[in-house]
Amino acid sequence: MAAFGFSDSGAPVRIAVLGGGSWATAIVKMLSENNVRINWWMRSKDDIDFIRKNHRNPRYLSSALLNIDKITPLNDLKAVIADSKYIILVVPSAFITDVFDKLDPSSFKDKIIVSAIKGMILEENVLVTEYVEKKFNVPHDKLLTIAGPCHAEEVAQERQAYLTIGGDEDEGDKFARLMRGHYIKCRTNPDLNGIQYCAVIKNVVAVACGMARGLSYGDNFQAVLVSNAVQEAKRFLDKAYPLEERDINASAYLGDLLVTSYSQFSRNRTFGNMVGRGYTVKSAQIEMGMVAEGYYAVKGLYDVTKKYKVDMPIIKAVYNTLYEKISPAIEFRILKDALQ
Amino acid sequence: MAAFGFSDSGAPVRIAVLGGGSWATAIVKMLSENNVRINWWMRSKDDIDFIRKNHRNPRYLSSALLNIDKITPLNDLKAVIADSKYIILVVPSAFITDVFDKLDPSSFKDKIIVSAIKGMILEENVLVTEYVEKKFNVPHDKLLTIAGPCHAEEVAQERQAYLTIGGDEDEGDKFARLMRGHYIKCRTNPDLNGIQYCAVIKNVVAVACGMARGLSYGDNFQAVLVSNAVQEAKRFLDKAYPLEERDINASAYLGDLLVTSYSQFSRNRTFGNMVGRGYTVKSAQIEMGMVAEGYYAVKGLYDVTKKYKVDMPIIKAVYNTLYEKISPAIEFRILKDALQ
Repeated sequence: MAAFGFSDSGAPVRIAVLGGGSWATAIVKMLSENNVRINWWMRSKDDIDFIRKNHRNPRYLSSALLNIDKITPLNDLKAVIADSKYIILVVPSAFITDVFDKLDPSSFKDKIIVSAIKGMILEENVLVTEYVEKKFNVPHDKLLTIAGPCHAEEVAQERQAYLTIGGDEDEGDKFARLMRGHYIKCRTNPDLNGIQYCAVIKNVVAVACGMARGLSYGDNFQAVLVSNAVQEAKRFLDKAYPLEERDINASAYLGDLLVTSYSQFSRNRTFGNMVGRGYTVKSAQIEMGMVAEGYYAVKGLYDVTKKYKVDMPIIKAVYNTLYEKISPAIEFRILKDALQ
Repeated sequence: MAAFGFSDSGAPVRIAVLGGGSWATAIVKMLSENNVRINWWMRSKDDIDFIRKNHRNPRYLSSALLNIDKITPLNDLKAVIADSKYIILVVPSAFITDVFDKLDPSSFKDKIIVSAIKGMILEENVLVTEYVEKKFNVPHDKLLTIAGPCHAEEVAQERQAYLTIGGDEDEGDKFARLMRGHYIKCRTNPDLNGIQYCAVIKNVVAVACGMARGLSYGDNFQAVLVSNAVQEAKRFLDKAYPLEERDINASAYLGDLLVTSYSQFSRNRTFGNMVGRGYTVKSAQIEMGMVAEGYYAVKGLYDVTKKYKVDMPIIKAVYNTLYEKISPAIEFRILKDALQ
């Protein structure tokens, strides 16, 4: 077996990272400790100039000093992709189709596509890898996903984290070697779709946890809410993507749900909290200056769960509150009776 | 079906609560909203006088105003038991044998014994209900347990909580009716032993979470630690007490583990944190003025898990730190590699 991050030939592996946010920055930092060349694409030319000069992302995880010798920040999307073997997708899910629309159908030929996006493709209601598979004709075994639990902030601090690479086990194993480091453990899991859906569900659960807090429910209720959320996620995955060896209590599922649901810094949670306290969806979004992922996620999820006819009372409560304008107090009275 | 807390005959059900701590006080408060008579035994005569006069427990949950019309605080243990149909055990596990030693072998004849103790009988290394079954010859179907997740403090505030009564489903269902109220939901579960063991395990996991924090591990690590703890608990229960329909993600297992592991107020967590930061076990106990339940729990658990030959790296790390004087930094370096 080759050592951490060294391909068998010894030449650095060329990796494109598409996106300039905090999770993208954390991924760049983790990769850059191994034998790779990173082509880092982002929209803002000012940020690219700043990173080249100061070796830090000015807007996200700015405390993290990046190993610029291995990183080339670029604005030319096609060049970045053409020059890379792995393409890591880590733009917000709402913008991914904008990025894809700039690409030819053959752009991903012979590439390995790694989704680090925790969301679905809007309107299409499919996972990012499902979309890429169809639109760019990427073979199924060349599609991977990166799952946490992993706050980007703790990567900047080099605190111990555990990642899971979902997808084909051979390809996953090769990619996992590029991610591992002295503070990052990385394993593989064949459940490409289940892991991605769980990452979408967790954002909605974090909104629900925020709403519960905003409505003055306490710690006892949250523990029951999260326990029920795990059962709800399992019901959905077992129906939509049956897989015998799935352990819903593995870190990539339960751990990822926990780190988001119990984080005081989660934007989904903050958004839910404001809605729980009586803000309208619009005013909460304006006050926060952004739209939480869970807001989009619940729409897609709700439609998909209807399709599979799975009973998901937490998803339904969040959906009804955000899209049907039913008061969160009423929805949570109904939810309270559905939980156990 | 009779209404909440009303026996079919309409006469109040007589219940003994043994113990004067915060969980005992919370249980008294919950019960006293139904059609019951509570014989409340505690050691301190001063506290009994205070409660009779002021309708509050002076030392625990003192904000909770108790419905004294239904509560008789008493110091006479035998009289309390003789006059009651249900006997709720809620003294610290370290003192339960002292209480039992005062009783005749026939004291629990025709009674229903409900353990609300989250611990094992020291030295004997058995659950409280296992001990009672043997020592007092109580039939198995007359043994119940109360499980959370349930911070006593939130009961005082009448915030929504969910309890589970473990044991025989008929007896459990009758007792559950006495616990239910406008902020308490209560269901049954036949897994008498599994629920109790999970409550013991969670105290050790809370110590582990505290140690991790004291050693500067972050949120990502804790999420992985808790996910692994759930898997560890399941492995143990499936081996020691096989039960096909057990869902480890139900509130009585996972929820109870979460509320303790993520509580900033958990004494087990505080204790673990101090040990993680470098306090000796003794000095942490002196500074806290008490011994956290998890300290006793891990000793009994460790012996039991050896007996069943179940791999439980978290239990082992806590045990080695607290009883074998191995530094927590070393134990957590080993544990870090065992987790996934």
